[in-house]
Amino acid sequence: MNTVEIIRGKRDGKILSKEEIKFLVLSYTKKQMPDYQFSAFLMASFLNGMTKEETSALTNAMLYSGKIINLNSISGAKVDKHSTGGVGDKTSLILAPIVAAAGVNVPMISGRGLGHTGGTLDKLESIPGFKTKLSLNEYKAVLKKCGAVLIGQTKEIAPADKLIYSLRDVTATVESIPLITASIMSKKLAEGIDSLVLDVKTGSGAFMKDIKDSKKLTQSLVDTAKSFNKKVIAFITDMNQPLGNYIGNWFEVYESIMVLRGEVTGDLLTLSTTLSGAMIYLGGRAASVEEGIEISNSLIKNGSAFKKFCEIIKCQGGDVKYIYHPEKYPRSKFVEFVEAGSDGYINEMDNFKVGMAALELGAGRKTLDDKIDHKAGIIFRKKIGDAVKKGDILAELHSSSDKKTEDAKKILLETLDISPDAVKPPKLIKMMIK
Amino acid sequence: MNTVEIIRGKRDGKILSKEEIKFLVLSYTKKQMPDYQFSAFLMASFLNGMTKEETSALTNAMLYSGKIINLNSISGAKVDKHSTGGVGDKTSLILAPIVAAAGVNVPMISGRGLGHTGGTLDKLESIPGFKTKLSLNEYKAVLKKCGAVLIGQTKEIAPADKLIYSLRDVTATVESIPLITASIMSKKLAEGIDSLVLDVKTGSGAFMKDIKDSKKLTQSLVDTAKSFNKKVIAFITDMNQPLGNYIGNWFEVYESIMVLRGEVTGDLLTLSTTLSGAMIYLGGRAASVEEGIEISNSLIKNGSAFKKFCEIIKCQGGDVKYIYHPEKYPRSKFVEFVEAGSDGYINEMDNFKVGMAALELGAGRKTLDDKIDHKAGIIFRKKIGDAVKKGDILAELHSSSDKKTEDAKKILLETLDISPDAVKPPKLIKMMIK
Repeated sequence: MNTVEIIRGKRDGKILSKEEIKFLVLSYTKKQMPDYQFSAFLMASFLNGMTKEETSALTNAMLYSGKIINLNSISGAKVDKHSTGGVGDKTSLILAPIVAAAGVNVPMISGRGLGHTGGTLDKLESIPGFKTKLSLNEYKAVLKKCGAVLIGQTKEIAPADKLIYSLRDVTATVESIPLITASIMSKKLAEGIDSLVLDVKTGSGAFMKDIKDSKKLTQSLVDTAKSFNKKVIAFITDMNQPLGNYIGNWFEVYESIMVLRGEVTGDLLTLSTTLSGAMIYLGGRAASVEEGIEISNSLIKNGSAFKKFCEIIKCQGGDVKYIYHPEKYPRSKFVEFVEAGSDGYINEMDNFKVGMAALELGAGRKTLDDKIDHKAGIIFRKKIGDAVKKGDILAELHSSSDKKTEDAKKILLETLDISPDAVKPPKLIKMMIK
Repeated sequence: MNTVEIIRGKRDGKILSKEEIKFLVLSYTKKQMPDYQFSAFLMASFLNGMTKEETSALTNAMLYSGKIINLNSISGAKVDKHSTGGVGDKTSLILAPIVAAAGVNVPMISGRGLGHTGGTLDKLESIPGFKTKLSLNEYKAVLKKCGAVLIGQTKEIAPADKLIYSLRDVTATVESIPLITASIMSKKLAEGIDSLVLDVKTGSGAFMKDIKDSKKLTQSLVDTAKSFNKKVIAFITDMNQPLGNYIGNWFEVYESIMVLRGEVTGDLLTLSTTLSGAMIYLGGRAASVEEGIEISNSLIKNGSAFKKFCEIIKCQGGDVKYIYHPEKYPRSKFVEFVEAGSDGYINEMDNFKVGMAALELGAGRKTLDDKIDHKAGIIFRKKIGDAVKKGDILAELHSSSDKKTEDAKKILLETLDISPDAVKPPKLIKMMIK
């Protein structure tokens, strides 16, 4: 096969064959094709799009650039969840123990936070001793013992994705639905799962700010999962404000503990149990998503979910002392408060900026080499639609320096708007696509 | 300026500023930008196009990546011609002496042949001793002495073009009107010319096979030349069959000698004097293109053009023995004849294949490193529309091996079609655009 001819085909709007796409991805992964040819292919794909079949073929080629974990030795259904990322999204920490407690295996490979978004791995690593790097054998052993395992990307899994993602980042070819789909799905399919629940975020704090684009991405992810004979349920959910009230790595573990202990209700509980409900349903332990949600709530109520959470943490080397006594976790040296400047109702905010404020505090990283301050973050006391009086504390900012809290405060004051008129909170779950 | 942001702009259909385009080209030329980013930019430009202003800015950035030859020390107008390339196109060899004989300077920097097309440099180098590599000082000296000079691309001229062209070749971004325009014009404008005549070929042996594309390219070239305050006249001319009857390097010098001696009429003479007529007009030595054509014909008739041809060849180190006695030039060892299989009229041919047959004979090169056989080539005895009888010789094939003549013969037999009905020859000059 001729590389230039294949690029020319994509450029001229032809539909590429499975073999042509495989040839490009494998040549590139094996470094037999120079970056400049693959980047021309990426830009042509960005601008001319890809059909369902091409997207599936790209996913397949990226998936088979590495290893697919064989979980046949573990009995029972294996279900994972993937979220497109947002601010304050700690549902993985909550739903993994719920679903495992319901008897469904949760083999979960997660990413790190970058820019305004947090990452499950960073949150877990705020728990002293917790190991997110396991060998594939350890991964299977934890899953077998606990019913859930949460680790980071390994070198064996979809190595093409890492290479291609780095190239997309520097060639303005990131925001493409087929390319995003193949990146997500090639990694998820390598986990050895039967079913997948997807949480596609939409709004100012999401990668897809527009509901139309979010729908397109969701449909593309669902179509691709189905083309690999996976059961799939997708939700489009709100990211116009942080999920829950806590942003920051330990803060989010803390809030997850509170939810698992049944001490917190609200958007975070609702979304976590909706996703876990869908996972339990796909895993065959409930007759419907609704029944899955009921089971989830009862597993929180009877303490099984929290117990399972502690078990998973122990299995992965974490110290459960702070899980039982989160109030003993070290605190940030500097705390600053953002106060309401007038009476009224919390209005829209730019949730991307909220994420950037958390990043300024030390809770995130600007580049993948940055170090994270696990204690740093934001606690929201009010959310969209809440009534406030002048002087009320809207948010707490925690960090290791007063310069950082000052910078973050400036960002929040700019974006937290108070309306004199009542404001309707955004709808949390916008849509379910099966 | 941020490279990824500029690529994103072009990707999203924004119009780039002169500064942004200059930044990309200069960063790339200085190797401060990796190939993969420039190739993403090329593909986005290919697919989203460029405005007149962007094309002019790209030309400008590529032009100023190198030196612009200063010809102020040479009095009188400086006019060049550029052809987009074809099969049997030796007009440069004919028009340069005509125009110089008319008192207009012709500073000409030409290319080599590649694939099915021939190159002026290769043709000139078939003349023993002829030097196509001159220093810029020698270039000026020859121009001053003879009124014309014909050399090859130098390192000083538009180095960005060489780099960008190589990248386009391997990233399927060659056939783009703005990119072709900038490539041609950046080199031509560096010659230090006042005016330019363009010969855009159209038809099966041209890069633009379709008249619509040819018109677009012509308009783009004319617009760009004007944006640099150059006087310009463009012709769209036929390339559905070879120009003249001879293809091959020495063969084309031979046919040029015959035309300059006034011994040959037909399409080659007509096109050569049309182009030289336009050049003489733009150079201020005729009141109209028509008068320029009349002057051209009289300069052939009175022997001045042939005399000037010999003078230029001497000036550039060439041996004029074979110019005066072309019949003494060495001949190919093998000659094969292509005969008519039936009575009728020569019909359409695929002129690209005719060029490929000449390449098989050794007259061309498949890659820029291939060596050329100057003696090899094709002599057409019949052209489109000519009446033939079964057994008539349609073409002679000359080469250094009978394998090569056999291969070339096969190609020609496949494409030379004889129709029982009369065939109208294609119109030579399709259009003039000023």
